[in-house]
Amino acid sequence: MNTILLLGSGKSSTYLIDFLADTAKAKNRKLILADLDLESAQSKLKARPNTVAVKVDLKDENSLEELVDKSSVVISMLPAFLHPVIAKIALKKKKHFFSASYESPEMKEMAEEIKKSNLFFLNECGLDPGIDHMSAMKIINESKENGETLRSFKSFCGGLLTPEFENNPWKYKFTWNPRNVVLAGQGTSRYIEQGRLKFVPYHKLFTRIDLFEFDEIGEYEGYPNRDSLSYRKVYGLEDIPTMRRGTLRRVGFTKAWDVFVQLGLTEDHYEVNLPEDFTLRDFFNTFLPYHPDRTVEEKLGDAFPSLDFPTFEKIQWLGLFSTDPVPMRQGSPAQILQKILEKSWTLNPEDRDMIVMQHKFEIETLNGTKEVVSSLVCKGEDSVHTAMAKTVGLPLALAVDKYLDGEISLTGLHIPVIPEIYHPILDALEKFGIEFKEKVTVTNPG
Amino acid sequence: MNTILLLGSGKSSTYLIDFLADTAKAKNRKLILADLDLESAQSKLKARPNTVAVKVDLKDENSLEELVDKSSVVISMLPAFLHPVIAKIALKKKKHFFSASYESPEMKEMAEEIKKSNLFFLNECGLDPGIDHMSAMKIINESKENGETLRSFKSFCGGLLTPEFENNPWKYKFTWNPRNVVLAGQGTSRYIEQGRLKFVPYHKLFTRIDLFEFDEIGEYEGYPNRDSLSYRKVYGLEDIPTMRRGTLRRVGFTKAWDVFVQLGLTEDHYEVNLPEDFTLRDFFNTFLPYHPDRTVEEKLGDAFPSLDFPTFEKIQWLGLFSTDPVPMRQGSPAQILQKILEKSWTLNPEDRDMIVMQHKFEIETLNGTKEVVSSLVCKGEDSVHTAMAKTVGLPLALAVDKYLDGEISLTGLHIPVIPEIYHPILDALEKFGIEFKEKVTVTNPG
Repeated sequence: MNTILLLGSGKSSTYLIDFLADTAKAKNRKLILADLDLESAQSKLKARPNTVAVKVDLKDENSLEELVDKSSVVISMLPAFLHPVIAKIALKKKKHFFSASYESPEMKEMAEEIKKSNLFFLNECGLDPGIDHMSAMKIINESKENGETLRSFKSFCGGLLTPEFENNPWKYKFTWNPRNVVLAGQGTSRYIEQGRLKFVPYHKLFTRIDLFEFDEIGEYEGYPNRDSLSYRKVYGLEDIPTMRRGTLRRVGFTKAWDVFVQLGLTEDHYEVNLPEDFTLRDFFNTFLPYHPDRTVEEKLGDAFPSLDFPTFEKIQWLGLFSTDPVPMRQGSPAQILQKILEKSWTLNPEDRDMIVMQHKFEIETLNGTKEVVSSLVCKGEDSVHTAMAKTVGLPLALAVDKYLDGEISLTGLHIPVIPEIYHPILDALEKFGIEFKEKVTVTNPG
Repeated sequence: MNTILLLGSGKSSTYLIDFLADTAKAKNRKLILADLDLESAQSKLKARPNTVAVKVDLKDENSLEELVDKSSVVISMLPAFLHPVIAKIALKKKKHFFSASYESPEMKEMAEEIKKSNLFFLNECGLDPGIDHMSAMKIINESKENGETLRSFKSFCGGLLTPEFENNPWKYKFTWNPRNVVLAGQGTSRYIEQGRLKFVPYHKLFTRIDLFEFDEIGEYEGYPNRDSLSYRKVYGLEDIPTMRRGTLRRVGFTKAWDVFVQLGLTEDHYEVNLPEDFTLRDFFNTFLPYHPDRTVEEKLGDAFPSLDFPTFEKIQWLGLFSTDPVPMRQGSPAQILQKILEKSWTLNPEDRDMIVMQHKFEIETLNGTKEVVSSLVCKGEDSVHTAMAKTVGLPLALAVDKYLDGEISLTGLHIPVIPEIYHPILDALEKFGIEFKEKVTVTNPG
């Protein structure tokens, strides 16, 4: 009997836990769910057969090693900085390791020993990174096998709301770590277009927009992610002239978010101490130039001559023109903005989130040029059974499942970019409704 | 006989060395000029009586301590991070200490022991910081003594060129550390205006401009420095409604510099690897969006619809539209830009630099409101005898001189904001032509 050790029973583990717990008995496996919060772990397992919840203190390395020692595979759903710690223990105890996070440099250093020990370590097997790799590599490898040449690849993903729950002017709520959303894009974005390197500073990012059309749910806009260049190597596309990855939002979002970026409300590198009785209006005004007789609203218009009503309305809806008190007085502008947003952008229990992803390829075939658009739309059920938890957790659950079933029989350190890994997982994901729809248009027949 | 130990014989020490060497015999003092480069130190001293050049290796703490032990006062003109090291040795050996750099937190930690040891440690006694403190505090203290209330204080300074040597479209060359010029303003600028806190992100800094008029040399523009708020305490102006410090450039400079900031050419937090045969035009294009049939010049116009010819000309003059090769292929954008600028912005031997500084006060008097504008213009002689070296070195030389003459008889850690320090120094600076001209306008008689 194989024992699966799952570390972390947080919000994004819901589907992962359910899959592994529901299949434990039939597959003759044992699931140990370990968390600092024993009650939370127990409530998630609901006493399903062959499952047990245990309390684990990550500072107690001995009991952690004991737990790993009892297991066949270890899954880490802990905060990203802990993955290398857990992976090292797994390597020491000769156990396989799975995570949905980026393959870190510390992880790469272990590669040789993992291989030598005949172990299988798989990272980046969630949504983004995860489903993005698998679905893209399927198309890329098929295309290469057909002797085609990839000219352009744009891959964009977003965690959003289903259209019927877009019930605020931003058409957005937090469905993932709010701090990451507020700081998204800070640094410099790098991509390549028609063979030309392009560097975009943060303060220009939200004006460098692509549009993406999805059946039934309509149009979305995307801004570039920080580093698209390194993915050329990951995907074996070293010579592709155009490659850009990015993040999707509903059309109109980035124009309003850009106001915050331009004014400096998302800055996180310094701390402010706001006076007592400081209002949201005072806070917003702090980022606008002084004028003896122009109102905050007028000065905003002066600073952004092309500001339209939908943008104005988004800012107004957050209360930034109101005399409500600021929710915190000490912290970085980004931390204060996050607090303000959390008041308005938190999911209600009935809200349904939605994952959208689109790959857009331009491919030279023997018969001319074709455009391939491959799209995923995955809707959540409610604020607990989110599409985010489903698309992050299921790929990982299926990877463990397929590995233990022997459908994947690799050794070494991997991310899911090779057919032996992504084929069985993508096929299984389809049965859960996580399915890409492909449209091929021949744009320039030869 | 007092012995002065001067550490560092670099470019900005010229006037400091000359003053101390020229007066050594008459004042019955000895000057030791210590530098890693013995020949440079010797050539600066020119064998004047009572002076000696010595070679010092800063890593050899023993010989450094011996040198300090032989001296009465120590002046550090070394890179700023070395001041606390030297100050600690001075404290240990019970010697007085002088520098033109900011009073660091490490220095502040020594304050009590300095006082207990009856020593005098003076920092921030150069140009900016230095002359700015002294000239401002003279007006501030006089005003307070008259029972007046300061409503507004703007203090701006720039290291520029004399009008007759403004022989390029930027009307600018490097007269100070080029790297600091390229990175100037990065971070967030903070000031207060009419009682309202104002935070300005870097990418908006070069559009938040004040204009300053000087007799004979005309109009200059100034952008805010990073932190104006902390100076309220330094100057005893905790309740002043408007306070802003900043940097002066010739009118038109900031608009063109802002193009570099907007495009991301001044970013220093990531490194690029440019392809072989990359031209300046390619480099500039890397920061502009891709377009299938617009030229670099056209795309620049698209990105900045209000771009005027003087701005375009400045960028063109640097060669950024040319097919000349980039001067380096690996480094941050800011490092590459610096290399490009150094080709065009280096002083010729005959070039004359110029320091401009202006304090603008709004003061409520018993008889109404008055505006006080106090301006300094100091012109260099050539590329060695610069106004920068003169205005940085002479205040420090005079501080040491006045201290050894007993005209300043304080103990403890200080910056030159108290009358006993700034009066004798300001009076002596006037004899060297470093003199503020004051204009008082009663704008609203009571």
